[in-house]
Amino acid sequence: MSSHILPVPLEKANRLINHGPTVLVSASHGGVDNVMAAAWVCGLDFAPPKVSLVLARTSMTRELAEKSGHLVVQVPTVRQAKLVHDVGNSSGRDAPDKLKRCGVELFRLDGVPAPFVSGCSAWLACRLIPDAHLRNGYDMFAAEVTGAWADDRVFRDGHWQFETADAGWRSLHYIAGGHFYAIGNVVDVPGPETD
Amino acid sequence: MSSHILPVPLEKANRLINHGPTVLVSASHGGVDNVMAAAWVCGLDFAPPKVSLVLARTSMTRELAEKSGHLVVQVPTVRQAKLVHDVGNSSGRDAPDKLKRCGVELFRLDGVPAPFVSGCSAWLACRLIPDAHLRNGYDMFAAEVTGAWADDRVFRDGHWQFETADAGWRSLHYIAGGHFYAIGNVVDVPGPETD
Repeated sequence: MSSHILPVPLEKANRLINHGPTVLVSASHGGVDNVMAAAWVCGLDFAPPKVSLVLARTSMTRELAEKSGHLVVQVPTVRQAKLVHDVGNSSGRDAPDKLKRCGVELFRLDGVPAPFVSGCSAWLACRLIPDAHLRNGYDMFAAEVTGAWADDRVFRDGHWQFETADAGWRSLHYIAGGHFYAIGNVVDVPGPETD
Repeated sequence: MSSHILPVPLEKANRLINHGPTVLVSASHGGVDNVMAAAWVCGLDFAPPKVSLVLARTSMTRELAEKSGHLVVQVPTVRQAKLVHDVGNSSGRDAPDKLKRCGVELFRLDGVPAPFVSGCSAWLACRLIPDAHLRNGYDMFAAEVTGAWADDRVFRDGHWQFETADAGWRSLHYIAGGHFYAIGNVVDVPGPETD
């Protein structure tokens, strides 16, 4: 694990995905790891922080997450665009060496059952909230964020630093096909300071 | 209504919000209109297209949407950053002249019960799907997209044109407080062409 990866207070965890980046979702069960790309992942609550995720029925990562009850949501960077696209266009069911072929390297943190993808800018360790209605009706999952981390080269003091960090750290925002946008310039509306 | 506002085929409606922009949600009931800002709005399904929305219990726009069964999700632009911030930091309950004070202008389209906010880049007309479990458990709403439109100066031929449009058309991506990022540069991963 890189020495640049620092914990983010849970009350600021939502800031890691509020801007709507495309994310990678990772899970592990019975010695098998997998990673998928997901565009439909969103904040759901503040305290405790929760996220919602739409995960396709056919996804192997979803199966591992459901079996283990845990997953990690991570924010990939512009540098990882090909990795995100490749991970999103192959299944661990068809290609057991998917992660290797896509260039995914994993690391682990004590106490978190799901694996973390190296090179991302931020990570949310999540515990699935069992909810058959969401799952069966919408392929949706609610998850409580139990821990959050970010790379201090791009998220520091509770804030993204996209405007000063190297452009390779910018988040990816999926449209369709192989088409993404990077996050862009800061837009500040003057008003009372928030922490 | 501007002559630049063109319909978007429903099968491409998700592209209007896939990149995770902060949106404005508008609704109308009993002659009262209101508009709120929302960061937790996300794709939910493709065919028919659906979106999920987290709408705070105290929101007047949510009440109008629930009473009428309809709302519009629209994508505001960098030019509208102050409007988005102001709309998100006042309630129509406390200030009946909220829309005027925030500089919100509305327009209507035939057959859509909810109002549209002028100056945005894209609009999704939505019909709420009654679901007490989502509402009571998560303050979440599922909605079917019944119509989609975009301004052809920034979305044409099924694709965002952020890279060539004036920078004022870029979408806003909320972090916290008055702090947003604009969407940035295109990132294309070579692969099979999609339409």
